[in-house]
Amino acid sequence: MADPVPVALHHLFPRGVDVALGELDGIDLRTPADESALVSDLQRAPVLVSFVWKPEFLTSSLRWVQSISAGVDQFPLDQFRSREIVLTSARGVHAPQMAEHAFALLLAITRRVGISMREAEHRVWKPRMGDELGGRTMGILGMGAIGTEIARRALAWDMSVIGTKAHPEDYEGVPVEVLGPDRTLEVFERADVVVSVLPETDDTRGIIGAEALEALGAGWIVNLGRGSAVDEGALLEALDHGELRGAALDVFEDEPLPQDSVLWSHPRVVITPHLGGLSPAYGPRLARIVADNLDAFRGQGVWRNRVV
Amino acid sequence: MADPVPVALHHLFPRGVDVALGELDGIDLRTPADESALVSDLQRAPVLVSFVWKPEFLTSSLRWVQSISAGVDQFPLDQFRSREIVLTSARGVHAPQMAEHAFALLLAITRRVGISMREAEHRVWKPRMGDELGGRTMGILGMGAIGTEIARRALAWDMSVIGTKAHPEDYEGVPVEVLGPDRTLEVFERADVVVSVLPETDDTRGIIGAEALEALGAGWIVNLGRGSAVDEGALLEALDHGELRGAALDVFEDEPLPQDSVLWSHPRVVITPHLGGLSPAYGPRLARIVADNLDAFRGQGVWRNRVV
Repeated sequence: MADPVPVALHHLFPRGVDVALGELDGIDLRTPADESALVSDLQRAPVLVSFVWKPEFLTSSLRWVQSISAGVDQFPLDQFRSREIVLTSARGVHAPQMAEHAFALLLAITRRVGISMREAEHRVWKPRMGDELGGRTMGILGMGAIGTEIARRALAWDMSVIGTKAHPEDYEGVPVEVLGPDRTLEVFERADVVVSVLPETDDTRGIIGAEALEALGAGWIVNLGRGSAVDEGALLEALDHGELRGAALDVFEDEPLPQDSVLWSHPRVVITPHLGGLSPAYGPRLARIVADNLDAFRGQGVWRNRVV
Repeated sequence: MADPVPVALHHLFPRGVDVALGELDGIDLRTPADESALVSDLQRAPVLVSFVWKPEFLTSSLRWVQSISAGVDQFPLDQFRSREIVLTSARGVHAPQMAEHAFALLLAITRRVGISMREAEHRVWKPRMGDELGGRTMGILGMGAIGTEIARRALAWDMSVIGTKAHPEDYEGVPVEVLGPDRTLEVFERADVVVSVLPETDDTRGIIGAEALEALGAGWIVNLGRGSAVDEGALLEALDHGELRGAALDVFEDEPLPQDSVLWSHPRVVITPHLGGLSPAYGPRLARIVADNLDAFRGQGVWRNRVV
């Protein structure tokens, strides 16, 4: 077998990633304690595994960057292209746990688990009528790998699905109607529940605002993409003075959620503290991508999730 | 059109049933305020809709009883047979909301929604790693209409399913392995999560006890059948000193849950106050069965869910 490939792992990584990568064949995994030690490792190591990017990581040895995020906007793609550095993403690694988390959040509102747990803390027994998802329409903002896994689960549970995507014409996933971002309001009009897994961009900031919530009417909102997508003031207004039936949020405008936020205690709000992506299966799934890409790096296979 | 059929509705019924039945064509719905008024109505009305049975309901006019429960053990089947009284059940009316509630409970443990909501009440932000259902095995105790709907959703979410049923040889539902009650322990051994929708009988009381929980090991328990199926002392023992990872309960040995129960505040227990069967779709679904059976009663159709 060829010499192990030196791979440097940025010190910020989801729990378990270091163990899963360390167990791969043909890897010489370095786990520097901070970014200056990382830069030192990258003087020789040709591979960086990271979701953080800093200009000083661009050493003359660097040949391949494996992102541990699905999005890759933080990386200098043009520089990678001109220096023939390969960039691969972690696309798909977050999808199963995020899809399950989307339903955990949604069902916690529709089946009244959220308010029941608030009341359990105070030993209050008060049965409330929940609702049903079957037969309803789910709108999904962001039909990438995660949105597609959410859609697949919704379809299997007798729901209809309509989604949005930056480039809907390229969509290849489950058989649902996928619209462009310019038709986002139509999704709110047609859906009973809207789930956002949007990344943060200039176009997505505040996209779930007063106009969208009015178009949704008596429905539910789930956000596990980025907190900036929701205008929290408009959300509270729709809950308290509009028709909105409930909101379940894993992400927030400010994190951790400020102590004085009304969201902490609102009876029709379900909160989880930005844990949608956490899963013990994350490390092993990422390691399978890295294993294939190590083969490709050695010229013995095909790159997975190659971006550049 | 023929004269409307007088139908007497017992005063204990899930919210919305009176409205949904009252809107049917060809029904003369009576909603007596108590059981003595009901007995009075039954001197003339040939139809009773009820989940409660009392001997005095057996008037000489009675020709058809529509149960609003799935189980019909409370009714005197032999007397009905000898007097040629038809009995129809509400089988299937609870299945969709119960199936969704099973996953609401399960995901609230695996995705940490339960503990997050306890902590939200105290404005505590503490991300914890959840887990994934995909690839795991669900054991379902009670593969009737509800168990089958739970199994169908689990299969569609990449889980394996194994179930039990009083008469497994008669099972016609989703393609899963269905064992007899004598092999219940095997289900606990093979499953990662066990969901009980068992009715209360001499055979099911305490079936989720120390031996079963030990066989399950590092898994999860969900109970939304009857509280008597779980030995709550053994459950707490398995949570605190065994391997059990979490329990989500909609039903309890004593309801409402006593104020001094440890279950109220256990960090790995999710509680809903016996609301699994509640749904706004319950009344309309029952009404569709009653509508078909009104036709059958008039000799113009086929009985649905006929037991006797």
